[in-house]
Amino acid sequence: MLKSDFNFPFSNSMDNLIESNTSSIFNLAKSLENQGRSVIHLEIGEPDYHIPKITIDSVKSSIDNNQTNYVLGQGLFELRREIANYYKRRFNIDVNPKKELIVTPGAKFGLYLTLYSLINPGDEVIIIKPSWPTYSNLVNLFGGKIKEFPLSFKINQDITIFKSLLSEKTKLLIINFPNNPTSIMVNKNYLKNLVQIILAYRNLIIISDEIYMELTHDGKVNSMIQFSDIINRLVIISGFSKSFSMTGFRLGYVLAPFQLIKVLLKLVSNTITCVPPFIQMAAVHTLQLDEHIINARKFYKEKMEEVIKFLKDKDNISFPFVPNSSFYLFFKVKNGYESLALDILNKTGVATIPGIAFGENYKNFLRISITRDTDQLFKGISKILSFIEKNLT
Amino acid sequence: MLKSDFNFPFSNSMDNLIESNTSSIFNLAKSLENQGRSVIHLEIGEPDYHIPKITIDSVKSSIDNNQTNYVLGQGLFELRREIANYYKRRFNIDVNPKKELIVTPGAKFGLYLTLYSLINPGDEVIIIKPSWPTYSNLVNLFGGKIKEFPLSFKINQDITIFKSLLSEKTKLLIINFPNNPTSIMVNKNYLKNLVQIILAYRNLIIISDEIYMELTHDGKVNSMIQFSDIINRLVIISGFSKSFSMTGFRLGYVLAPFQLIKVLLKLVSNTITCVPPFIQMAAVHTLQLDEHIINARKFYKEKMEEVIKFLKDKDNISFPFVPNSSFYLFFKVKNGYESLALDILNKTGVATIPGIAFGENYKNFLRISITRDTDQLFKGISKILSFIEKNLT
Repeated sequence: MLKSDFNFPFSNSMDNLIESNTSSIFNLAKSLENQGRSVIHLEIGEPDYHIPKITIDSVKSSIDNNQTNYVLGQGLFELRREIANYYKRRFNIDVNPKKELIVTPGAKFGLYLTLYSLINPGDEVIIIKPSWPTYSNLVNLFGGKIKEFPLSFKINQDITIFKSLLSEKTKLLIINFPNNPTSIMVNKNYLKNLVQIILAYRNLIIISDEIYMELTHDGKVNSMIQFSDIINRLVIISGFSKSFSMTGFRLGYVLAPFQLIKVLLKLVSNTITCVPPFIQMAAVHTLQLDEHIINARKFYKEKMEEVIKFLKDKDNISFPFVPNSSFYLFFKVKNGYESLALDILNKTGVATIPGIAFGENYKNFLRISITRDTDQLFKGISKILSFIEKNLT
Repeated sequence: MLKSDFNFPFSNSMDNLIESNTSSIFNLAKSLENQGRSVIHLEIGEPDYHIPKITIDSVKSSIDNNQTNYVLGQGLFELRREIANYYKRRFNIDVNPKKELIVTPGAKFGLYLTLYSLINPGDEVIIIKPSWPTYSNLVNLFGGKIKEFPLSFKINQDITIFKSLLSEKTKLLIINFPNNPTSIMVNKNYLKNLVQIILAYRNLIIISDEIYMELTHDGKVNSMIQFSDIINRLVIISGFSKSFSMTGFRLGYVLAPFQLIKVLLKLVSNTITCVPPFIQMAAVHTLQLDEHIINARKFYKEKMEEVIKFLKDKDNISFPFVPNSSFYLFFKVKNGYESLALDILNKTGVATIPGIAFGENYKNFLRISITRDTDQLFKGISKILSFIEKNLT
């Protein structure tokens, strides 16, 4: 095709659009690989615990059974019913699969649709920090005004800050426990205290990203769904990528009051039509595998302990945030700086996520995902350490 | 969960959002089925020519080969390269797979992202009519101002109207040949004449939805990509749903200058992350099956001839648009009215799309898709005819 001498007149919305920082470092690492460099991927949240065999088998049998056509935009009823069963089993809470659930191609898309449907330019949105960069990216894209809520994960301290941020003008609160990038899950009492504050702000909508919910190392599972007083303005974003290692399947859901689901359904009908039925069928069977989750927890717990043990006496790094869930390690680097992750990638071939992606206050942090086989993982960590040793001290 | 006594304060963008009309009648038909009614689906554009065996096999082998992780947001390079090969084979045109292509979960999502990236409130968009309702829905969602371009499919008449609609203020033109709902493909001379007019409007961006491109009954395949003078402001939307019956796989692509692809890539990184790799791998193999397409054309051509032959002498219906491609029949009903399709569905259990979905001028039209097995198809058509006979004459 011709070289473009035409300037596309992009819409004003695009002025606030930036690429997802986690995606951009992944894309960069992949392109280095394509150029022949060997890269150790510690950047992406790609679980290494195996995908359940039944997941693979269900895709194959569903496709053999001709489940390859257009299906309902809301998602297969079988899957929505199974998600409802899951919440019943975990929390003894009744979710209406006909009205309170919609299936999405990944949790991120559920979040995108929810924020699109709710944010007007200028609306105030409180976002916890550190946090997944997509929250800020999307709120900025829709013109929302972000108020950062820096977490210490200590309830008294956090409550004081939370109160100081809230006003009648605050429209949305975005929370994420267990948290990415710190891998910290707070206890139920912490959540209860947050809810106590929220009760006083009756117009506040709570968006709770619970994608890492199952992967607590002690097996204690909590969800905002347990607080019935706020359930009429609670939006839960979740999916199958982390608990069941189904990242490439792109499957998530939104659990929310029908009023919101109805609007999301209209958006789905104008964007993606539906999610592949054979992928949805795989999730129907997968979601019943409580045993698999128990084993995944144990797997990540042991691996995290090993990593922490290895790193805890190192001079140039420290852990203000001690992980008790999932598989990220968010650590502080002495004399670290904004583009450190890029330098490490270019010089050592180890991909990590720069702390700045998760908030302005974390320029001297890095996030690694411990989801590589132990050899690669420790090889990568050692390369990071020697780079720091050589260049920053 | 609790009944909602909370009113979600939706964003102003949602004021202009309506459900896709084709999806809504499909959803209604599905819900009638769930209530135990038997429904003949003549509404949805679900090809009935078989999915290639290699498509099914490739999904299964890719998933067995662990192609189940996150991949590049732009799409697998293998697939982009194969799409470029395809355009080379068909039109001897070089497409740069690194820069000019992005893979999307369905053609609709490619269209959504493109229009989102380009339309500011108030921007003028010319849309051909009759046409797929998603064009108007999305332009309205983004606040664009629609100018309808009613087609006669006769070049002189259409050119005159086209000229009268264009101004320096026109930002976008959305075209779709072969056209849904009429199943009419225009000849290359028609397209050439359109392009001649477009050349005078150097700011106009052309969005060409070519999802039905391959399914011409005479096998002559034309694309806007053949007109090199406009290629720097041409966006082609296409996908695998119709040519290869891969509707439930949700796979499409956008072919456009790099400037636009870069922006779409940022949007993808904040919405869907990527498309399942095992689905993309299936398309890599499928796209090489030229023989399959030749057979599919023949299949739909013969079926369409049979339907036309059956319908051509009926008193109460007529065909202002004679199909020469794909599998829709858009016909006029004597004394037809806006909600006729709904009445037919409720009374006879045959689902069709109301003409109004495709444009204000087509209130007395219905669209049927002939993609059901012959028994069901003719049973459905007969029920429609006898409903019309009984109630409208």
